[in-house]
Amino acid sequence: MQIVRVIGTTTATLKEAGLSGQKFLIVQPVKPDGKPASEPTCVAVDSVGAGRGDLCLMVTGSAARVVRGAAGLPVDAALIAVIDEISV
Amino acid sequence: MQIVRVIGTTTATLKEAGLSGQKFLIVQPVKPDGKPASEPTCVAVDSVGAGRGDLCLMVTGSAARVVRGAAGLPVDAALIAVIDEISV
Amino acid sequence: MQIVRVIGTTTATLKEAGLSGQKFLIVQPVKPDGKPASEPTCVAVDSVGAGRGDLCLMVTGSAARVVRGAAGLPVDAALIAVIDEISV
Amino acid sequence: MQIVRVIGTTTATLKEAGLSGQKFLIVQPVKPDGKPASEPTCVAVDSVGAGRGDLCLMVTGSAARVVRGAAGLPVDAALIAVIDEISV
Amino acid sequence: MQIVRVIGTTTATLKEAGLSGQKFLIVQPVKPDGKPASEPTCVAVDSVGAGRGDLCLMVTGSAARVVRGAAGLPVDAALIAVIDEISV
Repeated sequence: MQIVRVIGTTTATLKEAGLSGQKFLIVQPVKPDGKPASEPTCVAVDSVGAGRGDLCLMVTGSAARVVRGAAGLPVDAALIAVIDEISV
Repeated sequence: MQIVRVIGTTTATLKEAGLSGQKFLIVQPVKPDGKPASEPTCVAVDSVGAGRGDLCLMVTGSAARVVRGAAGLPVDAALIAVIDEISV
Repeated sequence: MQIVRVIGTTTATLKEAGLSGQKFLIVQPVKPDGKPASEPTCVAVDSVGAGRGDLCLMVTGSAARVVRGAAGLPVDAALIAVIDEISV
Repeated sequence: MQIVRVIGTTTATLKEAGLSGQKFLIVQPVKPDGKPASEPTCVAVDSVGAGRGDLCLMVTGSAARVVRGAAGLPVDAALIAVIDEISV
Repeated sequence: MQIVRVIGTTTATLKEAGLSGQKFLIVQPVKPDGKPASEPTCVAVDSVGAGRGDLCLMVTGSAARVVRGAAGLPVDAALIAVIDEISV
């Protein structure tokens, strides 16, 4: 899992069947201290109610389709948790 | 998913069975502000009608074979949505 | 597998069903000499009892769901061994 | 898919059962203008008859096992098309 | 597949069930000329009898579990061939 911060949203009318109702959140990979780790070029779907500014755990690859409600969807990144605390 | 811009096309006569009729689009990974994020070395198939210049969401890996019409095809990148708006 | 050192933990109340009881460990990729190889942006689940400071082997991708107790969980990184010794 | 150029071959007597008869081609990732994009550290199997110097489309990951004749083989990169033309 | 050189070994007493008897080899990604391409942070299992100093082909991801004896094991990197010759 990657530590990411939700920094925005994106919308799309023209999309694959099945993606209606999915939120597409733009995420910024961050280091444990919360500082940016790389460019924010990734977009994730969300099933845990994450919002802008939240620090989250993101899965990529086939794990994104194990998320509740995402089986059979063409997605490769999903938020699986909103982080309460990081201790390093 | 990655934010990409369609910047070109590629054609191939000699190819795997099953790929006939697929569009192969050259894509440029971009940042939320639309500026290039890395070299445009990736090619994606498309099922949403994306065209040159469109900003899109791209999936990579096995998710590309969950796309409509791509089950059983040897592809690892597909456009799943044409982006209307990005808000960061 | 990647050689990583466990450098911290993270907690999350709001998370995907099924993740309750999972430990989320922050890991630092390291070189064979134990020095950091890249930024510690990765979080792994653990089924082998790894603790802070331990040098471990981490799998990523679908292999993380082959780990004991992780079948069907939306995870993409898991510790599979605590390293005793590295010889290069 | 990645745009690559075939730059060499490699042979192996000692290998996994099932790999006999497979061609292992060394490929160079290239940009749409045909210039090298990164180090040529990747080797791909081929089912489309690609030869040295050919510009090709390469899939990586599980897609490489969807290729004709590669089901059940331990491979993670395959050439799926010989490129005729690139237009950017 | 990646071209790698075996540069060491690692041992672990505390590990996932099923991994007993597996060799864990530390590998160095190399370029076709045999020079290092990146940091040696990867560890692979081996079913072809590779030893220290050998130049090998390595698969990563789910392909590592298609290797003989690795079905159902939590591994994401495996050596599938010992290279005899590279021609570029």
